[in-house]
Amino acid sequence: MDFVKLRHFFETHDNFLILTHKSPDGDTLGSGFALCGVLRDMGKKANVVNNENFPVRYNFLYDGYYVQEFEVETVVAVDIADTVLLGQRLMKYADNIDLCIDHHVSNKRYAKMTVLDPDASAAALVLYEFFKSQDIKLSAQQARCLYTAIATDTGCFKFENTTPAAHMAAAELMRYNIDFPQINRKMFDIKSKERLNVEQMVISQMEYFFDDKCTIICLTSEIMKASGIEPAEFDGLASIPLCVEGVVIGITIKQREEKLFKLSVRTTEEVDASAFCKNFGGGGHIRAAGCELCGSLEEVKQQIIEAVGRLLEDINSGK
Amino acid sequence: MDFVKLRHFFETHDNFLILTHKSPDGDTLGSGFALCGVLRDMGKKANVVNNENFPVRYNFLYDGYYVQEFEVETVVAVDIADTVLLGQRLMKYADNIDLCIDHHVSNKRYAKMTVLDPDASAAALVLYEFFKSQDIKLSAQQARCLYTAIATDTGCFKFENTTPAAHMAAAELMRYNIDFPQINRKMFDIKSKERLNVEQMVISQMEYFFDDKCTIICLTSEIMKASGIEPAEFDGLASIPLCVEGVVIGITIKQREEKLFKLSVRTTEEVDASAFCKNFGGGGHIRAAGCELCGSLEEVKQQIIEAVGRLLEDINSGK
Repeated sequence: MDFVKLRHFFETHDNFLILTHKSPDGDTLGSGFALCGVLRDMGKKANVVNNENFPVRYNFLYDGYYVQEFEVETVVAVDIADTVLLGQRLMKYADNIDLCIDHHVSNKRYAKMTVLDPDASAAALVLYEFFKSQDIKLSAQQARCLYTAIATDTGCFKFENTTPAAHMAAAELMRYNIDFPQINRKMFDIKSKERLNVEQMVISQMEYFFDDKCTIICLTSEIMKASGIEPAEFDGLASIPLCVEGVVIGITIKQREEKLFKLSVRTTEEVDASAFCKNFGGGGHIRAAGCELCGSLEEVKQQIIEAVGRLLEDINSGK
Repeated sequence: MDFVKLRHFFETHDNFLILTHKSPDGDTLGSGFALCGVLRDMGKKANVVNNENFPVRYNFLYDGYYVQEFEVETVVAVDIADTVLLGQRLMKYADNIDLCIDHHVSNKRYAKMTVLDPDASAAALVLYEFFKSQDIKLSAQQARCLYTAIATDTGCFKFENTTPAAHMAAAELMRYNIDFPQINRKMFDIKSKERLNVEQMVISQMEYFFDDKCTIICLTSEIMKASGIEPAEFDGLASIPLCVEGVVIGITIKQREEKLFKLSVRTTEEVDASAFCKNFGGGGHIRAAGCELCGSLEEVKQQIIEAVGRLLEDINSGK
């Protein structure tokens, strides 16, 4: 990574518009607001934008932030692998992005200059390493943004993408006296009453198959409508079926239309989720994949159970 | 900390019995088995013991461990603040503990030599710093034990007791190619079917009071009996009521006898849990405290709700 070149870029440009990806998460927002703060501290003008309004859930990341008035001259994308992730409102910038700072190996190289570290746990970690290499002083608020970005993208240092560098950055960022226990509580522990009720509902209806090696939960249109929560709040439910001891394949069925269902499949080391979903024309990663099935809920379930049965037989016979 | 003296201690003693505390957790077991491995690598004889059988949940910590035959000469306690935590089976050693390695500020100084760092996130972090200072080479299995101990005592780097040193140790220990995503999944995500059912049951019956600022869950004798799980498996349920957005005091009522109930109170920054429990002759920490109440479940609840009402009034009036 040519951090000297990146510093030169920031020094020789001004009036920055920082784009964050749609359905924003902690990494894109944390990276965006940390960079915005640093640029403003350098005497530059900078704003952060998103396809939607900034979520209230992340309001501590934009504490003290205000919109500056200026004509945009420089467009920067953070944590955005592909311009389709800009969303409709920001799509007009898609062909004129000057700089992209990212950590996705799948980055489409749409920007004039791309600073990419595919081994970084978060886009914020690329930024952190840049700030550190250039001795750029951070404020507590900027440290809070970077910490939150790294913590959320690694599931609080729990997931496979956690690197020694992520832990080292956290160790340094904590020294800014950031309120990390409150941040973590808010990001990982707190749920809305409605979300808790939906979880409780799907768990109470969870079905167990094949000596509890397979679990299935269903998010029917009916449950989703009754829940009174935003579609984004259903995120993460797909991890529930695999949280039961002994389960090797956990499946979430989400209703799209009356006779159309989306499957989210999560597996342990024993099972290839991507291969399983290929049975139904889908795909994805080895531990997390998806596909769509047509039919009534009962028909769809029947197809799934048969496929899981064959899969477990193959595993037992050592195929 | 005099690590040179500690090294001298290990070098001039042999036939170690390493005591871990009753109802063992990741820190006492991880510390115990890491130390045992290092001592054996030094050519010493060492065993780890506990009041109970080692829990299956932690079996990856004692992978490859076997009991050695020898007469005990040196008794070491790890992560044990007080000899009452030894449990009945190990109580016979209480007056003859040569060395204690710990991180509890409340340590009773019962051992002939105590190596204590009250600022350490885990007892294992004291051990890690010792091994590092003395250039003692660790095996992957020992690194796995130390990582697990630190991760479990900090709630995977989420809690207030997480220090920069804990993150730095994790960064180093990860380099031993330990399977930390699987460890974290096992320690933090996986639940038995029975535990999940109990959670689901108490959540479905959770009661909300005072504009959802207070939540109460009840673990009645009936629910506990029907659950079919060990008492230890009920640990952690007390954190559920505070996980709901907006709640400032979350209360868990656990039935002890027909007309005797134990309260576990968890609060956010707005409320002093310890002061609340003092109303009922209990006490504890500022965010987590407990007390006991007599009466029928309905009578007990009524008393609690009245006390919470007064508490919230005091807060609103700025007292």
